[in-house]
Amino acid sequence: MLDRNRALKSRGERVLPGGMYGHMSTYRLLPPRYPQYFERAEGCRLWDADGNEYIDFMCSFGPMIAGYGNPRIRAAADAQRDRLDIANGPPALIVDLAERFVRQVSHAEWAIFAKNGNDATTVCNMVARARSEKRKILVAEGAYHGAAPWANRMSRGTPEEDHVHFPTYRYNDIESLDAAAQAVAGDLAGIVVSAFRHDAGHDQELPDLAFARRVREICDAEGAALILDDVRAGLRLSLDASWSQFGVQPDLSAWGKAIGNGEPVAAILGNEAYREAATRVFVTGSFWYQAAPFAAAIETLDLLAEVDAPAVVERLGQQFRDGLEEQARRYGHPIRQTGPPQMPAVLFEDDDRREKGFAFCTAALDHGVYLHPWHNMFLSVAHTEADIEQALAGTEKAFRHLHG
Amino acid sequence: MLDRNRALKSRGERVLPGGMYGHMSTYRLLPPRYPQYFERAEGCRLWDADGNEYIDFMCSFGPMIAGYGNPRIRAAADAQRDRLDIANGPPALIVDLAERFVRQVSHAEWAIFAKNGNDATTVCNMVARARSEKRKILVAEGAYHGAAPWANRMSRGTPEEDHVHFPTYRYNDIESLDAAAQAVAGDLAGIVVSAFRHDAGHDQELPDLAFARRVREICDAEGAALILDDVRAGLRLSLDASWSQFGVQPDLSAWGKAIGNGEPVAAILGNEAYREAATRVFVTGSFWYQAAPFAAAIETLDLLAEVDAPAVVERLGQQFRDGLEEQARRYGHPIRQTGPPQMPAVLFEDDDRREKGFAFCTAALDHGVYLHPWHNMFLSVAHTEADIEQALAGTEKAFRHLHG
Repeated sequence: MLDRNRALKSRGERVLPGGMYGHMSTYRLLPPRYPQYFERAEGCRLWDADGNEYIDFMCSFGPMIAGYGNPRIRAAADAQRDRLDIANGPPALIVDLAERFVRQVSHAEWAIFAKNGNDATTVCNMVARARSEKRKILVAEGAYHGAAPWANRMSRGTPEEDHVHFPTYRYNDIESLDAAAQAVAGDLAGIVVSAFRHDAGHDQELPDLAFARRVREICDAEGAALILDDVRAGLRLSLDASWSQFGVQPDLSAWGKAIGNGEPVAAILGNEAYREAATRVFVTGSFWYQAAPFAAAIETLDLLAEVDAPAVVERLGQQFRDGLEEQARRYGHPIRQTGPPQMPAVLFEDDDRREKGFAFCTAALDHGVYLHPWHNMFLSVAHTEADIEQALAGTEKAFRHLHG
Repeated sequence: MLDRNRALKSRGERVLPGGMYGHMSTYRLLPPRYPQYFERAEGCRLWDADGNEYIDFMCSFGPMIAGYGNPRIRAAADAQRDRLDIANGPPALIVDLAERFVRQVSHAEWAIFAKNGNDATTVCNMVARARSEKRKILVAEGAYHGAAPWANRMSRGTPEEDHVHFPTYRYNDIESLDAAAQAVAGDLAGIVVSAFRHDAGHDQELPDLAFARRVREICDAEGAALILDDVRAGLRLSLDASWSQFGVQPDLSAWGKAIGNGEPVAAILGNEAYREAATRVFVTGSFWYQAAPFAAAIETLDLLAEVDAPAVVERLGQQFRDGLEEQARRYGHPIRQTGPPQMPAVLFEDDDRREKGFAFCTAALDHGVYLHPWHNMFLSVAHTEADIEQALAGTEKAFRHLHG
């Protein structure tokens, strides 16, 4: 049932470090039942290398928001590829997409496009520093803003100087935020906030309004940039920047993952005050001007607006959450479901060693449901109520046989 | 003739910082005649937003090596997109591609794939440091290894700590290399070398054999990594790592640009000694596992091997170089053509302010030839002898009317 996966892993172990790198590695991170290799994707479904079918709740760790292989988005990207994908400059489409973001996102007056979310968070830091000519960027303890050395405290191979200008505060903790800002007063270039606290392995936390406002106040007082990392949450909480619902506008925002429904594109959006600074940073990449992902992004943004995607994924996520809650209670396995329902995180009570979570998710896989035992998950508008019901039938079987 | 380009620029100036960012900006970097926007690409030809046709000698700054829209590569990528592009893990193809590189590149025993060349150079540094637990990475003065803060001394917005562990040496200057290595003895994690000196705006220099050997010697003596940045030159000088022709093997090599013929994919290749260290760095990106570019890369590598691409582009480049040399002499405008012919750099004598270069390249554009006045250019296997002849007919007209 996982024979081909096993054979591929054994080949992969010879030519890929540790068998697989990064967040898509199943080695050490996930139970052995998790397939490492996939062969087909359609709508909200995945088929692994052995042909096993799953209703997917990871959406490729976020990018898929409108369905794998969405025909409308694929057609837009293909039509662009027929004309031009890369060249010595971009097509008109780059202007269309920048205008689209400026119309859609309240704080945005300009855009830079890149490839990955981490490109976007890095550029935000550079623009913030270029404007203020200050150095310190506050980041939340344990927050993930990418795997580049500055953002990456879990990797070997990064000297301490990579982190010296990134002091930390605790998310939603005004006292720690104030103390961190105070400690670098006069040298504060920016404060990076995630849309909400979505650190892997932890309960998720929505931002307190008072915290969000305090971040804005400090930035205003210090002439520092409020940098919203909307890479993971963007377009699922809101079609505007995620903090706009609180009336708190960032100066700079970083987007990635879902904006092209899986075509590789990221965006840096900024307000008028940071426009001039953005012209003074030199940021680029060979493939940052690739046209097909721009076409995919425009089509994705249109489609998500037409269906009011944040409302759809919230409703689907709530349906899934309610079902899991009921099953967990019925079978006597208390769980904590945290954060916005469209980006569910499910952790079992009294499960510090993740044994229950691993057993439950392993059983769910056997019943055709791909969950993640410790990372937040993602809903898409390609999921339907019927898909959620079918997934809940699978999770019920997983709960039923769960011990401990 | 450039009306639509002008209208697009005026729209773009409102929503893109400075009108355009990065290396594909024509603002400040190129004469006003250069089109910023393109609408069609096919083979070795580009059409700008106003429909003007050019024989292209930039190949999208390198990625295009087998022709824009190469039907065979496009078909391979599309076939993969039909099945799966992104998912919660890669398809079998990632193993195929890693095996392909391990077979093709002498020093390679494993591969990690990323999106841009700069991802690859950054990961090489991390792996080098993870193995040695040392900090210093020597880089050549003026060399370009990407726009990330560590690699980027021309941008605002990067504090000095980003460069403190990257002391410099002068390319091909053994004395300066020895001095730089000596100054950090005991803390040397790696030495980064480009395949040859291809700093924009300068005459290009092939590496001296003695220099290349000395880099290897120092790395061996210090337990440091020889990191070959083959992002720009890779696959045009050799299908193996570019320094393999000298019998000098890197420990780690960074690849990007041409390996997917424009589909966004980069690679980090390493030898056995660095495999374990590569498992200890956490490096990843949302789109690093995207499948269609892997399919494009396999097809590109196959195609380039079938036609012996380095020999083809060298011969075409030499044809172009010989023609330009003859024209320059005939019209009394001495030029310096440096570096390997497949990556031509053309600078006019006595032209520090680039006036002649700008005038010549502007006239070439008017005669249907897209050159770059100060950056190295690129040949592809989609160019033919007839294309080069046609381009030379255009450059002859450009020379004929060149003053000064």
